[in-house]
Amino acid sequence: MTTAPWRDPALPAAARVDDLLSRMTLEEKTAQLYGVWVGADTDGDGVAPLQREMSSDYDWDQLITHGLGQLTRPFGTAPVDPALGAQALARAQRRIAAAGRFGIPALAHEECLAGFTTWQATAYPVPLAWGASFDPGLVEEMAEAIGRDLRSVGVHQGLAPVLDVVRDPRWGRVEETIGEDPYLVGTIGSAYVRGLESAGIVSTLKHFAGYASSAGARNLAPVRAGVREFADITLPPFEMALREAGARSVMAAYTDTDGVPASADPGLLTELLREEWGFTGTVVADYFGVGFLQTQHRVAGTEAEAAHAALAAGLDVELPTLKCYGKPLIEAVRAGEIPEALIDRAARRVLFQKCESGLLDEDWNPEPAERIDLDSASNRALARRLAERSVVLLDNPDGVLPLAPDTRIAVVGPRAADALAMLGCYSFPSHVLTHHPEVPMGIGIPTVLESLRAELPDAKVTFAEGCGVDDPDTGGFEEAVARASEADVCVAVLGDRAGLFGRGTSGEGCDVTDLQLPGMQADLLDALVSTGVPVVLVLLTGRPYALGRWHGRLGAVVQAFFPGEEGGPAVAGVLSGRINPSGRLPVSVPRVPGGQPWTYLQPPLGLAGEVSNLDPTPLYAFGHGRSYTTFAWESESEGAEIGTDGSYDVHVTVRNTGDRAGAEVVQLYLHDPVASVTRPDVRLIGYRRLELEPSEAYRVTFRFHADLSAFTDRSQTRVVEPGALELRLGGSSAETRHTARLSLTGRVRVLGTDRRLLCETEISRAD
Amino acid sequence: MTTAPWRDPALPAAARVDDLLSRMTLEEKTAQLYGVWVGADTDGDGVAPLQREMSSDYDWDQLITHGLGQLTRPFGTAPVDPALGAQALARAQRRIAAAGRFGIPALAHEECLAGFTTWQATAYPVPLAWGASFDPGLVEEMAEAIGRDLRSVGVHQGLAPVLDVVRDPRWGRVEETIGEDPYLVGTIGSAYVRGLESAGIVSTLKHFAGYASSAGARNLAPVRAGVREFADITLPPFEMALREAGARSVMAAYTDTDGVPASADPGLLTELLREEWGFTGTVVADYFGVGFLQTQHRVAGTEAEAAHAALAAGLDVELPTLKCYGKPLIEAVRAGEIPEALIDRAARRVLFQKCESGLLDEDWNPEPAERIDLDSASNRALARRLAERSVVLLDNPDGVLPLAPDTRIAVVGPRAADALAMLGCYSFPSHVLTHHPEVPMGIGIPTVLESLRAELPDAKVTFAEGCGVDDPDTGGFEEAVARASEADVCVAVLGDRAGLFGRGTSGEGCDVTDLQLPGMQADLLDALVSTGVPVVLVLLTGRPYALGRWHGRLGAVVQAFFPGEEGGPAVAGVLSGRINPSGRLPVSVPRVPGGQPWTYLQPPLGLAGEVSNLDPTPLYAFGHGRSYTTFAWESESEGAEIGTDGSYDVHVTVRNTGDRAGAEVVQLYLHDPVASVTRPDVRLIGYRRLELEPSEAYRVTFRFHADLSAFTDRSQTRVVEPGALELRLGGSSAETRHTARLSLTGRVRVLGTDRRLLCETEISRAD
Repeated sequence: MTTAPWRDPALPAAARVDDLLSRMTLEEKTAQLYGVWVGADTDGDGVAPLQREMSSDYDWDQLITHGLGQLTRPFGTAPVDPALGAQALARAQRRIAAAGRFGIPALAHEECLAGFTTWQATAYPVPLAWGASFDPGLVEEMAEAIGRDLRSVGVHQGLAPVLDVVRDPRWGRVEETIGEDPYLVGTIGSAYVRGLESAGIVSTLKHFAGYASSAGARNLAPVRAGVREFADITLPPFEMALREAGARSVMAAYTDTDGVPASADPGLLTELLREEWGFTGTVVADYFGVGFLQTQHRVAGTEAEAAHAALAAGLDVELPTLKCYGKPLIEAVRAGEIPEALIDRAARRVLFQKCESGLLDEDWNPEPAERIDLDSASNRALARRLAERSVVLLDNPDGVLPLAPDTRIAVVGPRAADALAMLGCYSFPSHVLTHHPEVPMGIGIPTVLESLRAELPDAKVTFAEGCGVDDPDTGGFEEAVARASEADVCVAVLGDRAGLFGRGTSGEGCDVTDLQLPGMQADLLDALVSTGVPVVLVLLTGRPYALGRWHGRLGAVVQAFFPGEEGGPAVAGVLSGRINPSGRLPVSVPRVPGGQPWTYLQPPLGLAGEVSNLDPTPLYAFGHGRSYTTFAWESESEGAEIGTDGSYDVHVTVRNTGDRAGAEVVQLYLHDPVASVTRPDVRLIGYRRLELEPSEAYRVTFRFHADLSAFTDRSQTRVVEPGALELRLGGSSAETRHTARLSLTGRVRVLGTDRRLLCETEISRAD
Repeated sequence: MTTAPWRDPALPAAARVDDLLSRMTLEEKTAQLYGVWVGADTDGDGVAPLQREMSSDYDWDQLITHGLGQLTRPFGTAPVDPALGAQALARAQRRIAAAGRFGIPALAHEECLAGFTTWQATAYPVPLAWGASFDPGLVEEMAEAIGRDLRSVGVHQGLAPVLDVVRDPRWGRVEETIGEDPYLVGTIGSAYVRGLESAGIVSTLKHFAGYASSAGARNLAPVRAGVREFADITLPPFEMALREAGARSVMAAYTDTDGVPASADPGLLTELLREEWGFTGTVVADYFGVGFLQTQHRVAGTEAEAAHAALAAGLDVELPTLKCYGKPLIEAVRAGEIPEALIDRAARRVLFQKCESGLLDEDWNPEPAERIDLDSASNRALARRLAERSVVLLDNPDGVLPLAPDTRIAVVGPRAADALAMLGCYSFPSHVLTHHPEVPMGIGIPTVLESLRAELPDAKVTFAEGCGVDDPDTGGFEEAVARASEADVCVAVLGDRAGLFGRGTSGEGCDVTDLQLPGMQADLLDALVSTGVPVVLVLLTGRPYALGRWHGRLGAVVQAFFPGEEGGPAVAGVLSGRINPSGRLPVSVPRVPGGQPWTYLQPPLGLAGEVSNLDPTPLYAFGHGRSYTTFAWESESEGAEIGTDGSYDVHVTVRNTGDRAGAEVVQLYLHDPVASVTRPDVRLIGYRRLELEPSEAYRVTFRFHADLSAFTDRSQTRVVEPGALELRLGGSSAETRHTARLSLTGRVRVLGTDRRLLCETEISRAD
């Protein structure tokens, strides 16, 4: 008996897939193009399809006789012991393989935004905190650990990272993003991809593209954006993560931009993604997104038309159902309404990925790892290090922080004593466990209150909740004010409750109409401030909130986003001074709650001026963050004349001039004084995080290349234009410490897809 | 001595202009391309240039030796007696004509948004109120009266109407717009143009285009919009006013859209406007807009580059300065940096318009009309009729309105006793007189309080201001609550103070961060409601405000916008019942203050749904308005199958079934269930206002043509697509009373610039 060519690992994958496709029926090819939402059985026996998510008219055992493209969230649907879940998945895979003619298992995918979204797995800080760390190396380490954990239980694909660039901070999913700057999102996002892919997991870039720009910040609302905004702000992180990090899957966004739904846009999913950028992986649907073409976007009249529009655009896999890519698609192909070549194109991509992942190999073996520990000590150490680097000290005007060891501290606020306060909406506890109140958390999550007590054993720490996160009751104010009044300092721990679809104040479907702190928390803070006792505000939030109301009246302000399971000790360490804060804002913190949308990427007319009474200047600018030590910057880079294809090295020497170790984030911004279209006054084009002992100094070199000044011109061409440029070394987008002036000479240069995306940096000891 | 050809009225204008141009020096041609901001001398001696607005280095007497394109606002700059001002203008024109070689006077332009913006001239209701009237005929009459008044004093061009479609009601200039629907804006705006042009005045469509879409509603902030939004929402009113009403001038918008400033956009100002639409008039700058290309948009490095960019795009006239089109332009042309042909092109358009207006004729005579009365009795009657038709009764659940003649009425609120409460920011009293507190108003403007006392002489009317419009003092609440408590009904007159650049709560540069009533007025209303006395809320506002907080707790709600000098009696007449309210909302009234931007033109994902916790459904929908009488609608139009170039007549018979005369506004909305791009769930495509005596009935026929279903498809082509359509006859955008179902058959039809823009209506008596 000879082995069929498609089984032969010695042959190139493309040849194997072509051979396999030629043997498959229409039903078998189509079966590769959808996923089914399942949960692992808690006894390890297999997986159970979620009936509520399924089309009505099929039978699981019958269905898998044609094969199956994907298994959706075997671990992320209900709490299951990881080892039992891994066994259940392996059994299900064997059944799927055994049911079909070719013995091909499904690709299993999971959510893993800030850690594997399953029971007992490490909950890392959310992406907004990664942005605050300005530390791609550490994010890559984290993603690699996440990838190893996914792999240990038999998962092949992770639905992360989110590369949406924040355009309106009222959006509920801001916590899932890396911030409001495309360069920061692209570089940190690429680091995540590198880490995940290095563990053999297919990473999925989402949401391609435009999702963060929903009008009014309502989730999925139509996106108003032009082609240049799209090209220069929305798309670059995706281009970077594909080219610099090799992501193998892309998820089509739910939204439409200027009337065209991403899931039905061949210009986006095929012409740009594949023909221009050369992407060869799979494009998967956001959950139910193919069906939305009919029911929500109304660009299709039937399920078959929705399938046709999505497939023709280049969307390969419907998730997590077969509502459109199942029976309706097959019938339409049989009726001659949809060309079978579209099925082949998509199936080829899916099977190629399965081939790459070894799922077509004869020796394919779904046995999970022997030892499964999804929250290992090394995971926790990583989670803690990232949390420590992501806490942003916004203000500390009078040195109220660090707290003295023997202080009387009143800890107040609805986020101080709740473990869930540390986690985002895509963490398993927030995402799933809220439906299983009887199930324990599965991971240890010290609260800020617990951590502070542990951190400062000699301090007298009292606690009052004050109010709930978002309920109107102010009955607890009195006790909170009493506790604060008796203390030397009040630590007010305020913020969001992450949740889904209205169950939280932050998270998917939890959008807000303005940036006032949720519920009665603003009033609680007023009451605490009015005691006269210094108030240290600690924010555990999924988005920035307006803080102008308390400007100049707070002892200190610490912005922590959702710092994950080790966030409590990290925050407590910053408060005690054990940790020197080093996070920098990945999003602007506004003065007033209204006036959105706004981010820092503004041409002059988007900044404060005489033509409107509204002043959008943020209270704390993008990139801002303080330290307990001080740094001196020195640079002699004065600039030069270079060609439009030239480069220039900017040097800066940074010395820790204080008496304790700390980290500085050197940021490089570009200012383009005259261009053929309006340009942001400044935008980030490079950064480097430096860990410095007292009196230690490093010299940082930014290798600026003219490509980094490129933008999309009126003819929608990406160009470098000659003329003056300023390279501004800054401590934030609003604080320039040194400027190098360049003059670009020569002709307008048109860039191709090989343009440089990154500003390389080098560092050397300089002391 | 023979007359030069350019002086010969027997020759065609084009030939005359060509001859003239051939005789002119560069300086003389260029002088036609700018305006200078002047004020008429109060003694009738001439005009005085505003030094603060001028470039520094020229001398008026020297300047005019080359001629002068435009005189900016001789009447609108400072209070001047109209007759003296007319004399001053005539003298200035004679001097300008005498100073140059060709004896050509300037074109004098003025603001005339809601009436001639000058002292002692009629202040009509603002455009938002015209929108509420749904009465193009009456708006046309008003504009004709405005045009006659402008002409009577020697003005040639009026800088109106504003055709911006509201995209975010927080914008300060919403009061200057006709509303949030392009069809309403286009039809009412066209009526205004017809009226103004019929009086011989050049009307100026503004702001071309996109200005209303500024991000965050901050005046002049960058516009985020795609090409389809631009083509289907922003542009249609301009196309309509040019094609259906023959406007002769267009003003370029300040803003940039997706990075391209309108003032430097040849695609907009030349390719679309002239080459596609066939426009032959002049394009003028918004004040200082050419200079902004350098200082604000930074697409030009020098004043000469700004001039070049604007001229090349097709912007013919710089206003109100010669900062760029003066010396910098001339020097750049001499240096060979700017082709002289661009000067010729613009000068030809300017001179053609002067020729058309008789300014090149030998018998040109600047004598003003003998009798000048800018606020005649007929003007006032028009102003009152329009005000009466624009007041919208939003709610009257228990019949608190009309008020009984002998009621005890507590009139409360900062807008009740202030004449300026009736006027928008482009009225002369709000725009200019605030700088001249010693000068009397110049026109009679009865307040709501005065009007109500006159309207109901037997009522016991008390008054308390309660609070200011936007100051934080609540000291007056007590008295206001006391007055309300003693009364049978409380009439709370709340709203905006129109002003410029931060001096108002509504108006140019007076943008807001949310739609909460200004200052302490929301709290005042809370206090009044808590008395238990029925509160009739009367809103004199420049934008809609969120009213959900008081829903179900108010006796009645009357939305009046800024109803002009006769607005007091109109509002009082609605309160007393003498006037049966008939206005309909031209903008949605939201429930909550935040969540912008939003207007009713939303595809399904822009409406309430499960994917976001935010519900943008307005409290009162676009098109909503109540009456003191009742109407019955009957229609037997069930629909038909028509071609993509076909038409279908929808009939509806409307009968006044109550016992008093009233007006109904029949609205026709289009619902397109499936299209190749996302489409608004409904949009207005026709309307007809009907005045009906008790038991009187009219049959209205809407001649729907398939062109009205057109939209801009993915390839940016305007098409009619085959498929199902619903024609929904409604009392508002949210209230369908009858549906006719069409099926469009045939192929996709591509439309040209001859596409039908209007839904013609016919009415006939049916009783």
